[in-house]
Amino acid sequence: MQFFKITLLALTVSALSLSATIRFGITSAHAQDNLLGFDAENSARQRALEAEFDSHLNTRDLDTWLRELSREPHHVGSARGHEVVEFVAARFREWGYATDIVEYEVLFPSPRTRELELVAPTRFIAGLTEDSLEEDPSTSNINDLLPPYNAFSIDGEVEGELVFVNYGTPEDYEILDRYGISVAGKIAISRYGGSWRGIKPKLAAEKGAIGTIIYSDPADDGYGAGDTYPDGPFKHESGVQRGSVMDMPTYPGDVLTPFIGATADAQRLPRSDAPTITKIPVLPISYRDAQPLLAAMGGEVVPEAWRGGLPITYHLWPGPARVRMKLEFNWDMVRAYNVIATLEGSEYPDQWVIRGNHHDGWNHGAADPISGLVSLMAEAKALGQLAAAGNGPKRTVVYAAWDAEEEGLIGSTEWVEDHAALLDERAVAYINTDGNSRGFVNIGGSHVLEKMANEIMRDVNDPQTGVSVAERRRARIEVTGNDKARGELKSRADLRISPLGSGSDYSPFLQHLGIASLNIGFGGEAAGGSYHTLYDTYEHYTRFVDPGLVYGVALSQVAGRVTLRLANAPRLPFEFTGLADNISQYVSEIEELGNTIRTQTEAENARIDSGVYQLALDPTRTYGPPVRKPEVPHFNFAPLKNALDELEKAADEYTKIANSGASASEQENRLLYTIERALTDDTGLPGRPWFTHHIYAPGFYTGYGVKTIPGVREAIEERRYELVAEEVEAAATVLTNAAARVRELSR
Amino acid sequence: MQFFKITLLALTVSALSLSATIRFGITSAHAQDNLLGFDAENSARQRALEAEFDSHLNTRDLDTWLRELSREPHHVGSARGHEVVEFVAARFREWGYATDIVEYEVLFPSPRTRELELVAPTRFIAGLTEDSLEEDPSTSNINDLLPPYNAFSIDGEVEGELVFVNYGTPEDYEILDRYGISVAGKIAISRYGGSWRGIKPKLAAEKGAIGTIIYSDPADDGYGAGDTYPDGPFKHESGVQRGSVMDMPTYPGDVLTPFIGATADAQRLPRSDAPTITKIPVLPISYRDAQPLLAAMGGEVVPEAWRGGLPITYHLWPGPARVRMKLEFNWDMVRAYNVIATLEGSEYPDQWVIRGNHHDGWNHGAADPISGLVSLMAEAKALGQLAAAGNGPKRTVVYAAWDAEEEGLIGSTEWVEDHAALLDERAVAYINTDGNSRGFVNIGGSHVLEKMANEIMRDVNDPQTGVSVAERRRARIEVTGNDKARGELKSRADLRISPLGSGSDYSPFLQHLGIASLNIGFGGEAAGGSYHTLYDTYEHYTRFVDPGLVYGVALSQVAGRVTLRLANAPRLPFEFTGLADNISQYVSEIEELGNTIRTQTEAENARIDSGVYQLALDPTRTYGPPVRKPEVPHFNFAPLKNALDELEKAADEYTKIANSGASASEQENRLLYTIERALTDDTGLPGRPWFTHHIYAPGFYTGYGVKTIPGVREAIEERRYELVAEEVEAAATVLTNAAARVRELSR
Repeated sequence: MQFFKITLLALTVSALSLSATIRFGITSAHAQDNLLGFDAENSARQRALEAEFDSHLNTRDLDTWLRELSREPHHVGSARGHEVVEFVAARFREWGYATDIVEYEVLFPSPRTRELELVAPTRFIAGLTEDSLEEDPSTSNINDLLPPYNAFSIDGEVEGELVFVNYGTPEDYEILDRYGISVAGKIAISRYGGSWRGIKPKLAAEKGAIGTIIYSDPADDGYGAGDTYPDGPFKHESGVQRGSVMDMPTYPGDVLTPFIGATADAQRLPRSDAPTITKIPVLPISYRDAQPLLAAMGGEVVPEAWRGGLPITYHLWPGPARVRMKLEFNWDMVRAYNVIATLEGSEYPDQWVIRGNHHDGWNHGAADPISGLVSLMAEAKALGQLAAAGNGPKRTVVYAAWDAEEEGLIGSTEWVEDHAALLDERAVAYINTDGNSRGFVNIGGSHVLEKMANEIMRDVNDPQTGVSVAERRRARIEVTGNDKARGELKSRADLRISPLGSGSDYSPFLQHLGIASLNIGFGGEAAGGSYHTLYDTYEHYTRFVDPGLVYGVALSQVAGRVTLRLANAPRLPFEFTGLADNISQYVSEIEELGNTIRTQTEAENARIDSGVYQLALDPTRTYGPPVRKPEVPHFNFAPLKNALDELEKAADEYTKIANSGASASEQENRLLYTIERALTDDTGLPGRPWFTHHIYAPGFYTGYGVKTIPGVREAIEERRYELVAEEVEAAATVLTNAAARVRELSR
Repeated sequence: MQFFKITLLALTVSALSLSATIRFGITSAHAQDNLLGFDAENSARQRALEAEFDSHLNTRDLDTWLRELSREPHHVGSARGHEVVEFVAARFREWGYATDIVEYEVLFPSPRTRELELVAPTRFIAGLTEDSLEEDPSTSNINDLLPPYNAFSIDGEVEGELVFVNYGTPEDYEILDRYGISVAGKIAISRYGGSWRGIKPKLAAEKGAIGTIIYSDPADDGYGAGDTYPDGPFKHESGVQRGSVMDMPTYPGDVLTPFIGATADAQRLPRSDAPTITKIPVLPISYRDAQPLLAAMGGEVVPEAWRGGLPITYHLWPGPARVRMKLEFNWDMVRAYNVIATLEGSEYPDQWVIRGNHHDGWNHGAADPISGLVSLMAEAKALGQLAAAGNGPKRTVVYAAWDAEEEGLIGSTEWVEDHAALLDERAVAYINTDGNSRGFVNIGGSHVLEKMANEIMRDVNDPQTGVSVAERRRARIEVTGNDKARGELKSRADLRISPLGSGSDYSPFLQHLGIASLNIGFGGEAAGGSYHTLYDTYEHYTRFVDPGLVYGVALSQVAGRVTLRLANAPRLPFEFTGLADNISQYVSEIEELGNTIRTQTEAENARIDSGVYQLALDPTRTYGPPVRKPEVPHFNFAPLKNALDELEKAADEYTKIANSGASASEQENRLLYTIERALTDDTGLPGRPWFTHHIYAPGFYTGYGVKTIPGVREAIEERRYELVAEEVEAAATVLTNAAARVRELSR
């Protein structure tokens, strides 16, 4: 009933949006235009196929599966987790897929002891549990519930003074330095946000802290942000964001088996040598538990930007607050189960289009990951129906439901490492989804797929407004974007897709093997605080995130089209002018970064030397001048720019062929899909050779946040100037190699 | 003892600051340079006099008087207020001043009934009182305490739903409009801040509200900002900011006697006709009282920028919260007593330099106003000592301690209106102070006095660092200023002084009569929340604001020098290139404002027309597109620019004479000090003829915040485009007139 009402609304608004399209001067893809990689006849056939595909999708299926798969906690290694695997595998088999459950043996720490108490100036023992709520029956289905913890914290018992470190980012520590405050020998208390959680204990440990507490501040994620659960979607006072703190920017996956699959007989590191386990114990807590700790602190009042939403004055240090924290984990080896379901391609069985979403959740996981998984399942079912009707894919389609994503992309990474050679040979692309939400389509990934992604965004309609998801996204940029972004709406036919950092299972495909990847989801209209808490339930999701699951269907439509086009295109829909254009942006950004950091450092050093800080700062307070930084040299970006020129020329040349509608040979298609591999090398990034891609990586000090041309960018950001020339060379080389391979296509 | 320690610190830092001066490339005024308005010999004599003046200042006097005058509440009309008047007058007499107590009969509403209760969904009766604290004995000296209220709220009893209006500014109401929320027939609850308090009921009434509640949010002024009293300086949970809500941007002073002195026999408006009394009842409350009201509200969650620091989710409307508010006041006629103390000038007794600070406080008023008053008294005492030693002023110096400033600049305004003709003839300048604080010197006022102010800022040393207060201010700009401000440190010898809006007793002098004025104080290092509360006590002030009262002495040094130089200069130290330069900035700003508002309106209207808002906004929420606004025409600023050119030329011409050291005749001096009068006209500003100055005015919708070239600027801001040409003409005319008078000086 709700779906019907929304459709009516969509009809009303779509008339209005037609005029909008015309006014913007950007023409939508016309139904008669050829699809990238298809000639006219094949385009028509593909469109008909996609229409049939759509007709097999329905919100009922999504609702049934979402309810079933999120009814209980189902983390890796749990009994319910295994039932979820069997359920999903059974569906794939029903739908005609050759389905394997591929197992890995992986290290999985679960909590044995979690103790946190304030020992001075008063005593308070943190509860460390989440409340079951009458209003949400799922929160009482807590078989096998993992209590709040951060996976891959080391064991430890520590006692020390608290220091408030805000988000615990490098910038935050620079400010603490100005107060003369160090975390050495102390326990850092940090709020969630500002960076990926794993960065907080990593940096705190680098700075000498003996432990880290992470809490969700109500200003960011609680009553300050909006009504709290169950009245609204935001974080309940007892809610705790679980999550892995494994050092994923070094390598994700099983901590004992970097670079290789965690098969039963794999050679393993001793746990004590695993570099991605934290150096200090770390525990996440609720704001209900955090308040007494923070209220007990004293000393300097925090800077304005560091204030949170608790009804207290936040202090940095020194103060009377001391805490004792004791953490012990069961360091078990458990089985991670990936469901791998294959529909063999009729023409190119050795070219694989891989489509994945994880199935494990921290708890019930209705949003994360089941909302994405049920969209994937709906796609798979529909593809199965098409195949049963004789319209199977031309290339092999591999559906994957990954295990142990939450602990560090473990299921996917082990499978990728285990099958590296085969994937290097056969993988056309990897299409990822994860928890889905409501609002605007977000597509991130390899820019070689940007044009296809844009065609698809123009072909799928937004369920709330009836216009294409592309048009809705354009409207959002028009209303909320900056001048540059607004300008591009007029000057650039395609919307940019965002580069990928980390945070879901695309990472091993893209950043380790160089397999062109996309990550797709909707979002922007359903903020809330259920993420990784007991409250990520069916009830929360269907009340506040995607009521009626209409965006679940829209996600199936978008991701399903990506799969179908990649599976069926006579010429793979890869394109390189978008790649070159985006990379040119990144090169400009890095050049600007160098110039900015140089002029800012120069000006700041001059101020420090002149003594103005001593005169401008309050002499009664401890907040002092910043520390002088080494001068920043000029860098030679010419190799990067020369290589980019080559790529641009080659890309322009190939565009003519791409637009001709001419089909490609199997060999040409193989060349097309392996050009992304050319953007990697065997050396990888400084200090983290697992990351071989020289265009996209998660930031070493941001965690999930992307760094483009990461070797160069991070060398400048981290002021390791001696690395810049080498990293420019490495990035220039991969671009030159990619350009050469694009040129091959035009021969 | 504390003073001694600070002096030592100052010595340490001053060596360092010397190098800073050299590096900046701006040379400080050298002790051998002539002072503006003095030749070499007179400069040396004046400097010696100022050194002697300094030697008479001491923190002991300040401390004695501060303790005495702030020991009990002493508002207008109170017995203790009269004792304060007698005490101050007695001191002036002791110091050799001809001292009058000049009385006016003014309307003074004090509270008779204050009731506020939440009547739905639950019942809560607001306490409306402030807690006396053991830690601060003054808070128990509460004879004649005025309880929290807003003076010049009308009487009324209202009941209605609450609507949260954030700061209650015009921008806030535009956002409420987008939510489809109106305050009509409801009670607006607003937080303090964002504009002067009187704007809140004024706008709410314009929008149809039946009442207004104003509270201090702890994010702005409470535990969110820092430790609360008595642990720290910030607002106690029971603290309430009292304050007048008289419509001062229309006219300040006694509400019944606009334009004329409120003498016993003055012709008065009936109270019901007084346009500056609010249209709806308004009451200020503490955050302790506000929390239950805000927590009871429902409906839309506030936009992110509107969130406060209470541990609740803030909602706009609609919700179950209804309140009843009943306010009744004693509309008494009371006597306001100004102390007017005169030291007759030896050479030009009919040229008056007026120096004032109010004496009345909302309660104890240690910071506001006694901290400023005691600096003024120290100056007066020192001037008396100089006079007794044969070094009396050449012009007449008039010291004024004003009454009833808090209720609406009443004492000063009535005196100014009462003596308008005499002041027009004789007043050289008015120098105001009010509550003083710690840190950086702030001088605002007439730009004709900018150069002299800069000379003085270079001659007075900061008590904490030992460098000149100018240098300390420059250092602050260097560290915290924007690029433009930093650039000016190098390109412009003088620091800009800020234009004056309203908020203290300079307003009638400057903006009604066109008497060149300055307002002087220190600040920037002692944030806190005692303002207009029970906690503005000696204890609070000396612990948190200016321990040792060293900035009290610094204020005497700065303001005393202004008085002494204006009193003694053979040629009055007025200068016009600074005036022209600042006005050229304002003209540029206004031109840019017109262009910005035009392009923004055009772009926003295009977005509204295109329908992108319907696509970009969440269709499940009520937040809608902005309302289309009329297109903005191009404006003719040529008359202003032509007039400015004339002023610039005349000013450049006069600079040669000013710098020559030549003394001026009495008539030339009179011409010099009346050039500020030329910036006024008889018509005044649109809708508020009392404000005759066409360069400086308080904003009609900001209250205290200044609007420069206010007729033109506000016509554009308020989108009353039909007024622009007329107001450009008026401003151009006053500039042309001023230019003509400056030219006269060079003849």
